[in-house]
Amino acid sequence: MVLRDIHSPADLKKIPVDQLAPIADQLRDYIIDTLSSHPGHLASSLGTVELTIALHYVFNAPDDKLVWDVGHQAYAHKILTGRGERFSTIRTYGGLSGFPKMSESEYDAFGTGHSSTSISAALGMATASKLQGNTTRNHIAIIGDGALSGGEAFEALNNVGDSKANILVVLNDNGISIDKAVGGLNSYLTRITASRRYNKLKKQVWQRLDGDEGDRRHATTIDLLQRLTSMAKTVAVGGSNLFEALGIRYFGPVDGHNINDLIDILKRLRDIEGPKLLHVVTKKGKGLRQAEQDPVVYHAPGLYDIRTGNQIKAEDVDKPLKYQEVFGRTIIELAKKNPAIVGITPAMATGCSLNMMMEEMPERVFDVGIAEQHAVTFSAGLAAAGMVPFCNIYSSFAQRAYDQIIHDVALQKLPVIICLDRAGLVGDDGPTHHGTFDLAYLRPVPNLTICAPMNEHELRNMMYTAQIPGHGPVVIRYPRGASVHSDWRSDFCEIRVGEGRLLRQGNDVAIISLGHPGNDAVSAAEELEKQGISTAVYDMRFLKPLDTKLLDEIAAKGYRRIITVEDGCRIGGFGEAVTEYYAEKHPETVRNITILAIPDEFVTHGSVARLKADCRIDKAAIIEAATK
Amino acid sequence: MVLRDIHSPADLKKIPVDQLAPIADQLRDYIIDTLSSHPGHLASSLGTVELTIALHYVFNAPDDKLVWDVGHQAYAHKILTGRGERFSTIRTYGGLSGFPKMSESEYDAFGTGHSSTSISAALGMATASKLQGNTTRNHIAIIGDGALSGGEAFEALNNVGDSKANILVVLNDNGISIDKAVGGLNSYLTRITASRRYNKLKKQVWQRLDGDEGDRRHATTIDLLQRLTSMAKTVAVGGSNLFEALGIRYFGPVDGHNINDLIDILKRLRDIEGPKLLHVVTKKGKGLRQAEQDPVVYHAPGLYDIRTGNQIKAEDVDKPLKYQEVFGRTIIELAKKNPAIVGITPAMATGCSLNMMMEEMPERVFDVGIAEQHAVTFSAGLAAAGMVPFCNIYSSFAQRAYDQIIHDVALQKLPVIICLDRAGLVGDDGPTHHGTFDLAYLRPVPNLTICAPMNEHELRNMMYTAQIPGHGPVVIRYPRGASVHSDWRSDFCEIRVGEGRLLRQGNDVAIISLGHPGNDAVSAAEELEKQGISTAVYDMRFLKPLDTKLLDEIAAKGYRRIITVEDGCRIGGFGEAVTEYYAEKHPETVRNITILAIPDEFVTHGSVARLKADCRIDKAAIIEAATK
Repeated sequence: MVLRDIHSPADLKKIPVDQLAPIADQLRDYIIDTLSSHPGHLASSLGTVELTIALHYVFNAPDDKLVWDVGHQAYAHKILTGRGERFSTIRTYGGLSGFPKMSESEYDAFGTGHSSTSISAALGMATASKLQGNTTRNHIAIIGDGALSGGEAFEALNNVGDSKANILVVLNDNGISIDKAVGGLNSYLTRITASRRYNKLKKQVWQRLDGDEGDRRHATTIDLLQRLTSMAKTVAVGGSNLFEALGIRYFGPVDGHNINDLIDILKRLRDIEGPKLLHVVTKKGKGLRQAEQDPVVYHAPGLYDIRTGNQIKAEDVDKPLKYQEVFGRTIIELAKKNPAIVGITPAMATGCSLNMMMEEMPERVFDVGIAEQHAVTFSAGLAAAGMVPFCNIYSSFAQRAYDQIIHDVALQKLPVIICLDRAGLVGDDGPTHHGTFDLAYLRPVPNLTICAPMNEHELRNMMYTAQIPGHGPVVIRYPRGASVHSDWRSDFCEIRVGEGRLLRQGNDVAIISLGHPGNDAVSAAEELEKQGISTAVYDMRFLKPLDTKLLDEIAAKGYRRIITVEDGCRIGGFGEAVTEYYAEKHPETVRNITILAIPDEFVTHGSVARLKADCRIDKAAIIEAATK
Repeated sequence: MVLRDIHSPADLKKIPVDQLAPIADQLRDYIIDTLSSHPGHLASSLGTVELTIALHYVFNAPDDKLVWDVGHQAYAHKILTGRGERFSTIRTYGGLSGFPKMSESEYDAFGTGHSSTSISAALGMATASKLQGNTTRNHIAIIGDGALSGGEAFEALNNVGDSKANILVVLNDNGISIDKAVGGLNSYLTRITASRRYNKLKKQVWQRLDGDEGDRRHATTIDLLQRLTSMAKTVAVGGSNLFEALGIRYFGPVDGHNINDLIDILKRLRDIEGPKLLHVVTKKGKGLRQAEQDPVVYHAPGLYDIRTGNQIKAEDVDKPLKYQEVFGRTIIELAKKNPAIVGITPAMATGCSLNMMMEEMPERVFDVGIAEQHAVTFSAGLAAAGMVPFCNIYSSFAQRAYDQIIHDVALQKLPVIICLDRAGLVGDDGPTHHGTFDLAYLRPVPNLTICAPMNEHELRNMMYTAQIPGHGPVVIRYPRGASVHSDWRSDFCEIRVGEGRLLRQGNDVAIISLGHPGNDAVSAAEELEKQGISTAVYDMRFLKPLDTKLLDEIAAKGYRRIITVEDGCRIGGFGEAVTEYYAEKHPETVRNITILAIPDEFVTHGSVARLKADCRIDKAAIIEAATK
């Protein structure tokens, strides 16, 4: 049988164990081939090919529940569960999601995208099975070592250990988060797998397994496995096993690229009741040399040459830098002048470009791992002690730190500068990753200053302004991707907090924008001018405090239409803030307002341009609102 | 010296070590005396009297930083740092906060209230000291075993282990959260402290320490301590120490009520650089028999008789039940009819009254410990597997689970029923605990139904309605304390989702309320009627979906004033939702709207009545808005 004949785990199960390795090769090739021209999360999925085959071979999905943490690593799972033919549509508009999604397949037991949720969800399902009297169903959470550093995963492990639920946690340990994994837990796992005594014993196990001793080998294997396990517990790491301490039976570590061994072990674990953890060691990027060597870059490499494996970089002469890079370069400039500045990232150093500062001043950048809550309170502690922390978090991940922003930062007015990267629509990653709620959930928080730059010069000036003492906590949110000017460099200039600006004069229509959509506003205004509609554009810069003086001026102008535009959700967002102010102070203005914002629904994945059009927040939508 | 002569840690340090025990007794008596008539968090603070004295004796606050997790246990700290005379004002309007608060004292290194933040904050401060070249400052996080189950604490430990920061984590282990501590971690700590071999050795240590062998005893102590420590690591718990696994040096467990020993050990730890953890075993409620025996009830016992120690229960004949009790009784009724119903609480079983169901059907209630994130995703997992979970979380703590509500519940439309207890102003606990942001942060989340009952019958009907299949995720938020009717029992009646109701006819003014403030609205309307102002009252019931048909009707009536009233923050809240709808559909109505909601600032602590008056959301404020 070949890969394209496998349309479900049932098909897979027809293949003899010793013929599964070629299927793994085909699967890996198919992923590498497809993603070379249809960009996606490559390295994670390459690391779990054998594990995925083994899981589907041993367990009985969809009755047995497989919950893939984050979901980056679930591409092989998608292909083996009837989605192989549509695989090239992954992350494109109308195509497969880049993450497991319940509505996409019955084999996706639980949707993911953000990390560290799988154990909680699987424990919920296992608990339900127990209550429903189902004693045979298996519930498996597959979680990376990076995701394990997220607090929710620990909360879940703490409860798993106390439960009698039939749950198996598969720890997919590749030593890599998206950036290099950090923290005591990672060092701990490394100590286990690096132990010389462990490795010696492991070799014996694999040799034994490779031998041909029939049923006898199983007994021996179990014996050796138990010795291995107890060694991992007591020897390799100086007499400690963290998972056993929490009451979870620990097995492993095992080689995550040997299908036969994996199947053998999983079958045995299937028959052991109660909570257990299998430590599987995998190589992120396995099978593509470049991805193995540089799993950070090849986490999501974009296009690459299928023959050489090399990334295909787009020509970017004169192309504006990404906001991310401008952030990364600017914080270094500022930090050179202001010794109190430090950078904090929860596991997104490369994504947010703090890796640049990390190289130049490593002692002043802190990658805290996937740990948004800690990132914010840690920043608050730094600020309480006189430092000026720039805590950079992706907008949708900041939802994880909402309480810390309220309770530790805002309530205490601590001058933490929270930079929300990936704000607005992010595109291919879809609904779990769009940063569309931040304006709405932060606006109600007292003491926060919230601003959004419409280009890289504004970003630089907002960063510069925020680090000047006296401003309290400041949130700066900006989108993923290219900014606006071909020359991003500009002299720093302090912005008066709460002060918007007139970008463009006009008499008929006013467009009031916040952040990057201001560029669409200007472009729409130019178009409208051609159509004879004189259009002003105001860049409010600040959601909070709102420039009410400027809003008063706008009201006084008597525009026949006032259009607000933003790349966040409509409910509770910028347009509502403007409307609310006008309702109270200039009620006569209210009937002229049109709010362009993201409607009250989760936005799918696809190109940002397409999604903006769908949400009616693009240039065309502005023009339509002005001409209607 | 006696307690009242101690106005700062400097005064404390003048006392010889062997005369500190009487000070501890006085401190304990003072706390017990004061709280008998000025209610506060009793049992936690009684447990840490000796620990607090020892910490202030050994360390040099405020230069050394003491970060008290949650802050329940910081009363002795407040008394020893110049706030003894004002101690009886604790938790009253204008008086001392019930929690550490940076603006209250320089000795409060970091404000708390919510749990599990202390290690992150202390690590931030320790990191700052290192960067600032200060190598002598000490940074101490004092955290309970209950708080340690919160994911943020683990995120922080994971980073502590990886740092070289000068930080001491004092684990105050009393085996009790607010309710009984749960989880694998708790069992683990119990195994350490219950070990017979450990206890035998411990006895030797204390005997040695009590002897009078001058300096020599120190060497011996260190030796024994190390043996103890290594024993805790390798013997007591079957060869594992969780903290050492994370790279943190572990010391203990030590008796938290022996000041001399504590001082001895803390002095030694002070001289050990790098991250370390001291495991201190204390008795919650120590010194008051009833509190020792029932630390759950005596966590915050209210008034009690100073001579007997017995609680003084208010006469409550015919007094309405609390919303909490109605919830607790109603879920049992529903669960008896619907076998799919389960209850989930993150460590607040008694506070939210799920303890009743726990007694009656223990296998269907899950106290997951302080773990709000896990609580919500675990509920989502249960719902995905066909159960009907009522996940009860205090409103302000739900801020911890915001991402899980969005990402795991709402995005997947899983029928989790999230009951937000302690919504609105909570009173004495103050700004960290007010549940005033929930309406604003949940309203933007697609797929959620959000409702608020104005009395216990409505609560029952909303709970009944939410568990009927087909509604998707539902949020029910209700306040702390007494509901309205003397007879809480009522037959269940399905409420049409998104349907408000007219409570009271009127022609001049309309009051539109959401939830419990509807009672003030009715009462104000009656008063206004006497003044000749005909006042209608509408109970909207649902924030989402908003009853736009009813709002259309109200607009059509042409009231001269429309007053919205809610017990949440104004920005992004209910009043804004109404205004926003009118601005779009009935702009002529907008000028007549008055929004009564909590202004854009953190609300202090004090009685709910006083705070409502301050925020201008009480009956008087409604009357004023109607007559102006």
